[in-house]
Amino acid sequence: MAPLANLDSYLGGRWVAGTGAPALLVNPATEEPIAQIAAGGLDAPAALAHARDVGGAALAALSFGERAALLRAMSRLIHDKRDELILLGMQNGGNTRGDAKFDIDGASGTLAYYADLGDQLGDARVLVDGEAAQLGRSPRLYGTHMLSPRAGVAVHVNAFNFPAWGTFEKAACALLAGMPVISKPATATALLAHRMVQLIVDAKLLPAGALQLVCGSLGDLLDHLGGQDVLAFTGSGATGAKLRGTPRLIERNVRVNVEADSLNAAVLGPDVEPGSDTWNLFVSEVAKDLTQKTGQKCTAIRRILVPEARAAELEEALAERLAAVKTGDPTHDDVTMGPLATAAQLRDVRAGFARLRQEAEAVGGGGGSVAPLGVPAGKGFFFAPVLLRARDSAAAQVVHELEVFGPVATVLRYDGGARAAGTLVRRAEGSLVSSIYSDDRGFLAEAVRHAAPLLGRVYVGSAKVAGQTAGPGTVLPQLVHGGPGRAGGGEELGGARGLAFYMQRTALSGDRALLDAITR
Amino acid sequence: MAPLANLDSYLGGRWVAGTGAPALLVNPATEEPIAQIAAGGLDAPAALAHARDVGGAALAALSFGERAALLRAMSRLIHDKRDELILLGMQNGGNTRGDAKFDIDGASGTLAYYADLGDQLGDARVLVDGEAAQLGRSPRLYGTHMLSPRAGVAVHVNAFNFPAWGTFEKAACALLAGMPVISKPATATALLAHRMVQLIVDAKLLPAGALQLVCGSLGDLLDHLGGQDVLAFTGSGATGAKLRGTPRLIERNVRVNVEADSLNAAVLGPDVEPGSDTWNLFVSEVAKDLTQKTGQKCTAIRRILVPEARAAELEEALAERLAAVKTGDPTHDDVTMGPLATAAQLRDVRAGFARLRQEAEAVGGGGGSVAPLGVPAGKGFFFAPVLLRARDSAAAQVVHELEVFGPVATVLRYDGGARAAGTLVRRAEGSLVSSIYSDDRGFLAEAVRHAAPLLGRVYVGSAKVAGQTAGPGTVLPQLVHGGPGRAGGGEELGGARGLAFYMQRTALSGDRALLDAITR
Repeated sequence: MAPLANLDSYLGGRWVAGTGAPALLVNPATEEPIAQIAAGGLDAPAALAHARDVGGAALAALSFGERAALLRAMSRLIHDKRDELILLGMQNGGNTRGDAKFDIDGASGTLAYYADLGDQLGDARVLVDGEAAQLGRSPRLYGTHMLSPRAGVAVHVNAFNFPAWGTFEKAACALLAGMPVISKPATATALLAHRMVQLIVDAKLLPAGALQLVCGSLGDLLDHLGGQDVLAFTGSGATGAKLRGTPRLIERNVRVNVEADSLNAAVLGPDVEPGSDTWNLFVSEVAKDLTQKTGQKCTAIRRILVPEARAAELEEALAERLAAVKTGDPTHDDVTMGPLATAAQLRDVRAGFARLRQEAEAVGGGGGSVAPLGVPAGKGFFFAPVLLRARDSAAAQVVHELEVFGPVATVLRYDGGARAAGTLVRRAEGSLVSSIYSDDRGFLAEAVRHAAPLLGRVYVGSAKVAGQTAGPGTVLPQLVHGGPGRAGGGEELGGARGLAFYMQRTALSGDRALLDAITR
Repeated sequence: MAPLANLDSYLGGRWVAGTGAPALLVNPATEEPIAQIAAGGLDAPAALAHARDVGGAALAALSFGERAALLRAMSRLIHDKRDELILLGMQNGGNTRGDAKFDIDGASGTLAYYADLGDQLGDARVLVDGEAAQLGRSPRLYGTHMLSPRAGVAVHVNAFNFPAWGTFEKAACALLAGMPVISKPATATALLAHRMVQLIVDAKLLPAGALQLVCGSLGDLLDHLGGQDVLAFTGSGATGAKLRGTPRLIERNVRVNVEADSLNAAVLGPDVEPGSDTWNLFVSEVAKDLTQKTGQKCTAIRRILVPEARAAELEEALAERLAAVKTGDPTHDDVTMGPLATAAQLRDVRAGFARLRQEAEAVGGGGGSVAPLGVPAGKGFFFAPVLLRARDSAAAQVVHELEVFGPVATVLRYDGGARAAGTLVRRAEGSLVSSIYSDDRGFLAEAVRHAAPLLGRVYVGSAKVAGQTAGPGTVLPQLVHGGPGRAGGGEELGGARGLAFYMQRTALSGDRALLDAITR
């Protein structure tokens, strides 16, 4: 057998091998080793200096339009290499072909969106924020606001589930804003991000220092950040809290964005008749969210809120969908859902499922165990999709608190009232997204307004959009992604809003002609 | 002698006496005790529940226009009671009459500004953020963003130097956004904020639970905050870091805004001729910032950047102004500058001055000691205004790092180049504001753009605005207030931007007519 490839870091303009005992990356369907990462040895001050002094200077010298060209080139390259990348996602991520496309097309699509935005901003080097306004009584004194790129480094710590999309949606915003990036993929699924950076480096698409990759540990890198640097993290709430609490980050007021746990809800409105377009949309999108990426999406529906009177029929419709799911090695032709990404994820999902079972019973899919298709006996991190029903929606605790990051969702019955639905949505104490399926404006307005302070995004499913949407689980670059409270309290994307995290807003006051000379 | 009044807290709709050994509030000019605060005994869960369940519910039921009426009533009441309040500021804050007006008019003016903004928002209950946009290829699917009030409590921890303005600029934004407030003034100068809340309570201007006041310690209140609550702090960087690092706040992703230390710079452009309007504006505003509020303004100019060739003339002009300052008891008619606010401030200013002297020499005002006018011998926390000159602007460390919070500023000579000026401004690693005085567009554009990522606000002083402005030290509600890095990394005010901290932004997607029904 050939020795395993080591995934090196890309630092200071070259590929650098890590030190120490390597961690294995495996195929989660077969448990075959596919690569390794030696986690240690990062020279953090050197990487930060390279980003700030070389990459930051180069990016600051470019206009938005020029940076947009960099993003477009990356988007095109990723699209050109799509077939190769899909195979890596299937091999290291346990993705079906569709799951891998979702991740990779998310990366190239978000880059393309921000390239378009950069083109619109054109020759500008700062963003003017809002209207200039007269200050006080004199027409001579004006005020305005502008955003300029922060003079630091954007450190990105990404989650295991979207090695492509997670890496490049963050990079798209930072680079277009004018900040150099140091990006760290999750070790277990780093193969794809590593290859994508390798392709970009080989094609010489970016200025030196604009994008560095850390395979392995960040070491003491956070202890060297300053007030112009930013940290963006996607992953578990526990790790998010640990990062946010790093003494150096607090002491230097380093900007931190966290995107963490989320108990997203999907609400069926009381007006939705079984068999209607809206009903079918609901069933189809809930079923999709349960199994897409084996339920390992931060936006996946975990809680399914259904009026009492519709619960039995809905459970039946969903159970039927789940029964048709074929779990196994995603390279096998018939398979529609792959394994979880790691052994640790499988342990966590099993443990979480056991906790959910304390207050919910399985109504579809059994207990998660499965004989996967096309997999050697006893191998792979498989968990079959499961639908639960909470015994008491309001009394339940675990189902509102514990994000089981796999193909598991729970039906919660409610009385059909908008306020009751909104109150159950709020029980998760902050979510990335929730969806409401209804064609009743009054119900929608009341439920959404009640729940909105606890949500980063609301998806409204209705007859008119059936067949037109990708569902609530798809993050679009036009809309903000993030949520309050348990979801991390952060915000990414959302068009130009996504640039603001990487820029400093500065108010200007003075003679209008002089302010125009500064911001033009 | 009559027993000292105790400043009680206003909690749960009644005035509550603290427990434990009381702290004395004194007149900083005479050291006479004027009131006391017993710091302990806060029932934090009860205060938070009162805010959330009573105040929050009442505010959420109001439109922006209705909340604006509350703010306008507070503004008018404060204005009506201005003379009484000015005396309290002079008595407890060491303010001159002008200083006290600055603080109190800042409070009523900011309330009035946000009342006007609320009137413009009218009947709305949510803010629509940006333009709705088509998502993808189908004209049926739209996206938009809205802001709704967070379903929690706004906790405000204010600094000693602006008991009126600090309390009510924060309260204006929170209340207009729809969040109930628990406000804690700094103990040493709490007399003014306490009286203002008392007036508002007696006049029954606000719904129950909308505004509570904590005189004394917050106790364990922060340990009871959740993901919908926010904390806004103004004060020292060390305290800011301690608050931000509170484990509960990190664990629950509580939003925190910090406004902390700032080494604000004023830059004289190389084009400015002595005796010109711009020169005179510069001299006048620097001198004003040195002595207004005895230099105890977070926005005060600490570093005066002057082209080499103008340094001697500038120092002479400023020294002449300082020589005319009359330090003493602000109730004395001739006095133009009062004492520092507390004995601790005096100790800190003396210690800080000694550290500055390691790399700078006094060129005006001597060593800070003074025989104050109208004060019993040996009494009062007086420090006379001092102008220093750094021996080497670039080599200096302390002058770029240590905010001496009193009437002390340091001249830093530079070569007249825009980039050199910007680089020196940046040395403070994040400031609330800096000012550049020049009529040269090229110089302004280069210097401002270079420094902007490190600044929350830039004030451009020029011939056209001379006589029209209140100077860089005045915080206007139209413009954001806050700064990156050392300045705390926060942002307040800035018109509607100031509401966003107290609201949750939520993206919406779906059929456009349904979204309109939700956000209208």
